[in-house]
Parts: sequence; structure tokens; C-alpha cells
Amino acid sequence: MNGMDNLVAGVDIGGTNTKIGIVGQEGEILAEDVMGTDKYPDFNDFTIQLSGTIRKLLVDIATDSSLKGIGLGAPNGNYYSGNIEFAPNLAWKGVVPLAGKLEQMFGIPVVLTNDANAAAMGEMMYGAARGMKDFIVITLGTGLGSGIVVHGEVVYGHDGFAGEMGHLTAVENGRLCGCGRKGCLETYVSATGICKTVLQLLDKYSGESELSRIPVENITSKMISEAASGGDRIAGQAFGFTGEILGKCLADVVALFSPEAIFLLGGLANAGDLIFPPTKAHMEKSLLAVFSGKVKILPSGLSENSAAILGAAGLILREISRKDPC
Amino acid sequence: MNGMDNLVAGVDIGGTNTKIGIVGQEGEILAEDVMGTDKYPDFNDFTIQLSGTIRKLLVDIATDSSLKGIGLGAPNGNYYSGNIEFAPNLAWKGVVPLAGKLEQMFGIPVVLTNDANAAAMGEMMYGAARGMKDFIVITLGTGLGSGIVVHGEVVYGHDGFAGEMGHLTAVENGRLCGCGRKGCLETYVSATGICKTVLQLLDKYSGESELSRIPVENITSKMISEAASGGDRIAGQAFGFTGEILGKCLADVVALFSPEAIFLLGGLANAGDLIFPPTKAHMEKSLLAVFSGKVKILPSGLSENSAAILGAAGLILREISRKDPC
Repeated sequence: MNGMDNLVAGVDIGGTNTKIGIVGQEGEILAEDVMGTDKYPDFNDFTIQLSGTIRKLLVDIATDSSLKGIGLGAPNGNYYSGNIEFAPNLAWKGVVPLAGKLEQMFGIPVVLTNDANAAAMGEMMYGAARGMKDFIVITLGTGLGSGIVVHGEVVYGHDGFAGEMGHLTAVENGRLCGCGRKGCLETYVSATGICKTVLQLLDKYSGESELSRIPVENITSKMISEAASGGDRIAGQAFGFTGEILGKCLADVVALFSPEAIFLLGGLANAGDLIFPPTKAHMEKSLLAVFSGKVKILPSGLSENSAAILGAAGLILREISRKDPC
Repeated sequence: MNGMDNLVAGVDIGGTNTKIGIVGQEGEILAEDVMGTDKYPDFNDFTIQLSGTIRKLLVDIATDSSLKGIGLGAPNGNYYSGNIEFAPNLAWKGVVPLAGKLEQMFGIPVVLTNDANAAAMGEMMYGAARGMKDFIVITLGTGLGSGIVVHGEVVYGHDGFAGEMGHLTAVENGRLCGCGRKGCLETYVSATGICKTVLQLLDKYSGESELSRIPVENITSKMISEAASGGDRIAGQAFGFTGEILGKCLADVVALFSPEAIFLLGGLANAGDLIFPPTKAHMEKSLLAVFSGKVKILPSGLSENSAAILGAAGLILREISRKDPC
């Protein structure tokens, strides 16, 4: 039972659901469960339910090994402070001390980071970035998150908030962003962004798309992807435009980091050939010559269900193995 | 003679001159000399002259200690390969194996990096970035170079070419850059860039500036800085515009790296209050709220004469102390 020696919990906190897994040394998920995040508007209630679920999973796998640590991924999770800070999509307002609270409850090391950084850690330890030292993970969900790895370490910056690629200015005086600024990358490259792009295209070319029969407020990025796969011109054009904006931004990002690969994860990335080729083509077109043909754009090496849990688990396993290398 | 135990050479190779210093453990320059770079169009001749100068300096300081290593900063110097690769402003075409050659000649460790990375190392070990783990150094010369430090390490990227901030796209379809692309930051923010800006402004407001009496091909960034200090409106406007372009780009850079400080070095930075306040103001205006007021923009903590030598010396001292920590 070698893998059992370093049992940890990996927790992925999303706006709707929180996924919890008990993970062994080699990245095997031994037990997992899901709880509703939005069912616990009170932060204390959430932590009680979360710790209860972790303890229950440990009982389920009936092991003598004790839990060595807990890794947490959450929107706006700050690695340095262990707090979730001003997360717009969570019910807990302001700053909530998640890692500190769980450390008190369990008496073991607890580490928190944001969801995109956890995804980067997951790819590095168990996914398609194994063996890479310099790479970037971009999560395409409602917004755009990024986890940047340099010399094998996640870039946190001096305050824990580095890696906000979603808020690069992609278009001067472009779309209004939730952050109050204009033209941010995530207002174009995200599930929300591509829906906006389709609405603009429908406005121009009304009647030329099967999507024009759906009430605009009901259009989802999945519908756009299905329509594009079926040959819908407007939907295809929306993906092309999304890849163009992303590819141009990536050319700038490559000039700064020179990563070996850039991974695209999440909803929009599942559209595969609709999004990868235009992104790659526009990145190459905008790249400084020294980087031409050098940087891969790749899908995740992990299944969507396990990636976030493994990322959070990988984060704490790495911390533990550093403190106690034997 | 404790400082003498770890004697190294710091070498700063520029297009015109190469500066050589013998440096002690605490960053004291014990002897220094300058040789012309462009006088040696043959790479072999250059290395012979360089090694001769280093040996002469060692004789000058009459020490029993032997040289422990050589640190080199050069345009397009690649840390991983030890080669200078396709440097547009040096006479040696293609790829020249500078570090390897000197290692053969001296039989001691030799490390090469580009000039901006060397400057970052100098600030971290002996300058105003002492104690900082996450910061950026921007060198404003003929072009714009950058050295980016994350977790106390220079960001080299997977191939050694990271940190090309000068080639971020600052203006969509903007000025033609030497790299063949358009709108690169360094076509606006550099000695060359501000001269172009002044020419454009003179074209618009001819006769309203003392600079209009100088033949355009003779205008230098130093003249612009002097005119602006003297109250010349066009020259002042040129600095304001330069700071605006730089500040906006820095807002994007901060979103990715969240550095504690950004240092501006070199010619344009010497203009002080003409360039720092507009850069800072425009950066703050474009920053994501979470970074507001957090990121300092600072001048170098080193004298311009010693900075590059100390940076190159710091680079090799650090490598040596890692390999032999006692």
C-alpha cells in the first residue's frame, strides 16, 4: 500500500459545485464526492460540510493511513494568504480564510490556489505537461483563467495575483468587461465571449444561421460549437474570430515567457478543431521570428472530471514532499 | 582579503564597446577596462583580445587569488547555449559560441545572458532590487530590452529567449519594427522611438519647437530630453506620449507577473521626471483593480557605469555559489 502513505485531499471549488477527492501518491483518485457550493451561503456552514465530506470519504476507503494534507483550488484563491479574496461568483463576500480554517479543523497542511493555477499543477504532475518546466494553462469557462509555470514553478507574483491573462487588453476600447475595463481578452475568448460574438454576427447577417431561430438569451457556447460542427457559417466564423483574438494575444505572451507549450482547457477547448487551428495560425502569424514553429498549443492530458481534483491534490503533495523529502 | 576568495570577471558587450571588470564577492570592482567591440569583426580576434584584457587586469590587481568564473552580458546572448545568436548590432553573424570559447581558454565556468537579463541580476544582487523576488528591469537604449525575475530567478523560457518585452504589440498596425512586424513597443519606447515621435509631432506643429531648427536626422533623445526640461512643448508632449504607450503595456505585463517593482534603466530613464510620472499614471489608469497602487516604478540603484559589469559578475557569482555553497 505504498501509494497510501501520502494520502491527500484534492478539492475543486466552483460557483455551483465543489468536487472532493482522496488522492494517493501516484495521482490515483481513491474516492470522490460532490457537494453544492451555492447551497452554503454561510462560509462556516460550507467548511463544516466540506470537512465532513472529507472525513466520510476517508471512512469509505477504510485505510489506516492518515490524511497528510489538503489542496484547494478556488476562484480568486490566493496561494500566499490562503484566503479566497473577493470572488465574484461565490456567495462569500470579501476575504474568507479557507486554508486557515481547514488547517485548524484538521491540524494538517492546507494549501489554496486559484483554479487555473491548480489546473497547471495537475497537468505538470499527472497530465500532458509532465517533464515540462515552462508552459501555460488557459482555462476557458465563463471567463478565461491562466496558470503560468516558469522553471517548474507556478508564477504567483509578489502578492499571489499573477497570471491574470483574461484581463490582458486584447482590443483597444473593446467590449466592456466585468472588471470595469474595456477590451479584456476574456470578453472575447470564453463561453460568454463567443456568445457575444455570435450575437454581433447575427445582427449583421440575420437569417443566415440556424442560431438565429434560438432566442438570443438562450444561446450557449455548446450550441455554437454544435452548429459550427454542422457547417453553420456564422458559428464557424465566431470560432475563427475567437481564435484570432486569442492567437494574437498568445504571440505577446510567448514573447514574455517563451513556453514550451500552451494548453487550452475547458468548455471552448472541447470544440477541438474549431478552436485549436485558428488560434495556432494567428499566433504563428503574429510571433516574433525567433519563436516561429516552436510553441505547441495542446489539449489537456487529463479527463475533465478528474483534472481539477488532481491539480489541487498535486499542489499539496508537492508542498509536503518538499518539506519532508524522504 | 575575504572578498578576494571569489574573484570573477564581469563583461558587458555592447555594439561599440566592451567593458571588463574584475569583481569581488561583495560586488566591489577591483579593476576595469574598456575595449572596442567593433574593432574586432573577426570573432576569434575578439576572444583573444578579451581574454588578454582579463589576464592583464588580474596582473594589475596583483592578487594570489585565481579567477573563479566569467559572467558575460551581450545582446542576444543565450543563457542555455552560451552562444550569441543573430545579434543585429554585432559584427559576428549567425551563432557564435562565446561562453564555450572562453571556457576553453580559461578552464573555469563561464555564463552568458543577454544584456537586460544581466541588468536584472545586477539590480537583484547589488542594486535597488535587493530582497525582491518578483520584479522587472526594462533597459531603454536604441531598443527596449527586459529582464524578468520570478521567484528570484531570471525568466529564460524553454529556449532562453523569454523576456522580449520590446516586441509586445503596443499599437495595432503601428510603426514598422526592425523585426519585420508592426507596432512593437520598442518602436515607440526607446531612444529611436521617441525621435520618431518628435518627428511626427514636428510634422504636425512645425515651428512651435526649438527642435524644428535642428536637421531631423541629427535629433537625439538627449536633445529631446534637454528641450523638454527647458519647457519645449513638443518635446514634453513626446515624453508624455512615450509614457502613455509604456504605461499601457506595463498594465498588461503586471496582470501576468504581478511584480513588486518595475525598474527603468538607460538613456530615456535618465530623463527622470519627464518619463516616470506619465508612465506610472498611464499604468495605474489601465491596471486591473487588484493591482492598483501596488507596483512601484523605480530607477536603477546602480551607477550607469558599473551596472552592466556588476550584473554579469553577479550572474557567475550566483552560479558558482550554487554549485559550491560552502
